[in-house]
Amino acid sequence: MADKSEKTKARLPRGFADRSADDIRAVEKMMATIRSVYELYGFEPADQPLIEYTDALGKFLPDQDRPNEGVFSFQDDDEQWLSLRYDLTAPTARYVAENFERLPKPYRSYRSGWVFRNEKPGPGRFRQFMQFDADTIGTPGVAADAEMAMMMADVMEALGIKRGDYVIRVNNRKVLDGVLEAIGLGGEENAGRRLTVLRAIDKLDKIGAEGVRLLLGAGRKDESGDFTKGAGLDAEQSQMIMDCVGAVSQMHSTHAETVESLKAALGHLDACKDGLHELETIAALCTSAGYEPNRVRIDPSVVRGLEYYTGPVFEAELLAEIPNEDGQIVRFGSVGGGGRYDGLVSRFRGEPVPATGFSIGVSRLMTALKNLGKLDTTDVVAPVVVLVMDKDTESLGRYQKMVAQLRAAGIRSEMYLGGAGMKAQLKYADRRGSPVAIIQGGDERAKGELQIKDLIEGARMSAEITDNAEWRAARPAQVTVAEGELVAEVKKILAAQAEERAK
Amino acid sequence: MADKSEKTKARLPRGFADRSADDIRAVEKMMATIRSVYELYGFEPADQPLIEYTDALGKFLPDQDRPNEGVFSFQDDDEQWLSLRYDLTAPTARYVAENFERLPKPYRSYRSGWVFRNEKPGPGRFRQFMQFDADTIGTPGVAADAEMAMMMADVMEALGIKRGDYVIRVNNRKVLDGVLEAIGLGGEENAGRRLTVLRAIDKLDKIGAEGVRLLLGAGRKDESGDFTKGAGLDAEQSQMIMDCVGAVSQMHSTHAETVESLKAALGHLDACKDGLHELETIAALCTSAGYEPNRVRIDPSVVRGLEYYTGPVFEAELLAEIPNEDGQIVRFGSVGGGGRYDGLVSRFRGEPVPATGFSIGVSRLMTALKNLGKLDTTDVVAPVVVLVMDKDTESLGRYQKMVAQLRAAGIRSEMYLGGAGMKAQLKYADRRGSPVAIIQGGDERAKGELQIKDLIEGARMSAEITDNAEWRAARPAQVTVAEGELVAEVKKILAAQAEERAK
Repeated sequence: MADKSEKTKARLPRGFADRSADDIRAVEKMMATIRSVYELYGFEPADQPLIEYTDALGKFLPDQDRPNEGVFSFQDDDEQWLSLRYDLTAPTARYVAENFERLPKPYRSYRSGWVFRNEKPGPGRFRQFMQFDADTIGTPGVAADAEMAMMMADVMEALGIKRGDYVIRVNNRKVLDGVLEAIGLGGEENAGRRLTVLRAIDKLDKIGAEGVRLLLGAGRKDESGDFTKGAGLDAEQSQMIMDCVGAVSQMHSTHAETVESLKAALGHLDACKDGLHELETIAALCTSAGYEPNRVRIDPSVVRGLEYYTGPVFEAELLAEIPNEDGQIVRFGSVGGGGRYDGLVSRFRGEPVPATGFSIGVSRLMTALKNLGKLDTTDVVAPVVVLVMDKDTESLGRYQKMVAQLRAAGIRSEMYLGGAGMKAQLKYADRRGSPVAIIQGGDERAKGELQIKDLIEGARMSAEITDNAEWRAARPAQVTVAEGELVAEVKKILAAQAEERAK
Repeated sequence: MADKSEKTKARLPRGFADRSADDIRAVEKMMATIRSVYELYGFEPADQPLIEYTDALGKFLPDQDRPNEGVFSFQDDDEQWLSLRYDLTAPTARYVAENFERLPKPYRSYRSGWVFRNEKPGPGRFRQFMQFDADTIGTPGVAADAEMAMMMADVMEALGIKRGDYVIRVNNRKVLDGVLEAIGLGGEENAGRRLTVLRAIDKLDKIGAEGVRLLLGAGRKDESGDFTKGAGLDAEQSQMIMDCVGAVSQMHSTHAETVESLKAALGHLDACKDGLHELETIAALCTSAGYEPNRVRIDPSVVRGLEYYTGPVFEAELLAEIPNEDGQIVRFGSVGGGGRYDGLVSRFRGEPVPATGFSIGVSRLMTALKNLGKLDTTDVVAPVVVLVMDKDTESLGRYQKMVAQLRAAGIRSEMYLGGAGMKAQLKYADRRGSPVAIIQGGDERAKGELQIKDLIEGARMSAEITDNAEWRAARPAQVTVAEGELVAEVKKILAAQAEERAK
């Protein structure tokens, strides 16, 4: 299958990433927090495999007009097609449909894991990425949707994002659909144009109201000169869309005011009635629970790309201006979203199984949190390194014993396992960020002693201390102690370092 | 691609599994413990993607004679072949080779994740499963191998497995290879026969010494009457293999005795010299650190299937007799293994990059721990359920507020979100294992009160209490309190339940 040359080239496939220790620790920390909020809300962990039958996944990829594009697929030995999941919702729908009878209803679950998109990779755009979802399946009541929005607000605050630095925006597809119907874009035959309109609205943040208006009409030429064909609406039709999108002022500080403006703008349209009523209920529930528009905001400009949404949709947005994955300082934008997908489980079953859910983009949120300084992992202390000065088996045994003693005392540590000399071993310890090095050569051994080097203090002394008084106040960077004092002395130095860090 | 019928059938692909909430929690708990031991030993987290170029993975599948069998593969849009990883070692080797210059050497890392085998599934045999590995890359010294074995012993004990209920068995491929060379089975032309011999030895546990001897000779007929062709060794050749395999008595209580018997049996073979010396060093290091043969045992019958091992090999074995995945009560056997793979990184580079590692089979180990009662997850309390007695928006808002108050107090809870009546709602709470239900109908509402139902005590009372005195001593299963007392009263009941559980 693949080229065979003498030496295989080590290369990461395009669009995939190796993760650093720091990123892994940061993600672990972040996910533990998200998990604790999901648990607090009564959701249970669930997990589906990464591979599903292709037909069970359906054709619901965002911005995907061609079937099975964007999915990694392969044929099983019985000729059936399998695919790597492209999100966590489709496998969840399959699982619930398959196990419907034995699940409590509504079924409240959360799950995290890798998903795959067979797309052209780009900066910050990977073909494997992680999502962390929560879903409530088996209820049509929008109380479930309201809960999703409130839970996401709680997730943001649990992660240390200040109120005002994030907002959960809520809309209802039925409202948008109602407006589209009112301007004559209902029916199967207008599906393509409806999608063009939704995509135009989705760009509001990036291209502004005038840009959207052009895309609703004849079309728009962007800065690079590329022309995007518009939806071909006339001025009146476009105006109705723009009225809907701009119906709610971002200044409203209560849900009651929001609902009032919504009704003023759209209340006359019969097709919007159900959708408006649902938004009103969501607004009332948020008010009762104390989630004001500075946390959960009704906003008719929220679209969400996925075709499978049928009712309320949500978007978690970070308002802070911080560097994104490409290093540009911008309003960070979406870190997750979701909505109601009443058709997804139902298509497996003869009965309606309404459902709603929310998905967090793990890597994106982590990037944001790191840039906000909310994912500090400097509390992880690197291992103490026991240097290997003599390489005979007996000496190795002695060093091994030291490291075993340190570990038994709960001190993260290792014996140097490479073949290098003392200087390179200290460089290794430095590269690992080790706090302490243990040294015992023949002379120390003869006296039953060993040397303990405080690498943090040593680095500080050589880098910073120029003043004589400060020099005297500093900890000694190296001490010689009796073998039996090893653990106690290392503990003392680690404690002093921890105290220093806490300052 | 797939059949299109009106209703898609919800079905899990063969050989894949949905995981239960209980299993997920158990695995999380177990993996946190394993991680803490790996960290204590100074290993750093690492993570590679699930997809690699097929040629970078190599052809090292266990028991795989045909190339690219057993791997899920698909072609990228640039015609290059990609595969899902079949273990964590091959991607690690690719990563280290690609980033060699900037990594500290030796590079000590750990990683967990899903791996895939495109094989015929069977009971307890999945096509997606999880491994948890640690690797030390960039050192030829067997101190690194000794450390792996000792670390695995620590992992077992950290997981609560008693000394004596597990053993880490250690061998050296060089010893076996030396014996094979001594009986004339060296060289490329005998690779097939060598494999047959190794597979025969690997079955020692299952078929006993006599069975192995048959497989070394002409062949063996099993209970079902199936005949397996043997390696065709003569009596003298077979005897030398059996001498090697049986060289160490399981009764030896010190490593010194073990090394002595090894030398007595194999010391005369020049081809075994290096291998024996390495085992002797490993034995000495284990002795120094206090890991006696009741934890780490040198055992020449350990084979390990993977073709890429080049030196020391390890196997973590559970000796306890507990139910396996198929429910049979047996000595549980292997829960992980590993060894030295000096060729795996090197094949990407022009220089030798020796390496050693260990891999834990997560699902298998979890099954064992559950059966040993070491993965109790009953400390996870199900959510309090606030029942919905009236469904108008105002009432919903009141229930929503109650649940918000409970959550703000850190109490796991939810408002019932389905459409059912009170009886079905209580059944739902029961199904979820909820500790408490909150009920407020119109009457209670009018009085500013609510009812709190202790579902655990309620269940106990109806199931167990037949005695009058006991009845009077029991907690009341239901109390009516003022709305303002909600949080305090629920806390009280949960505390009483926790106390009861602790008994």
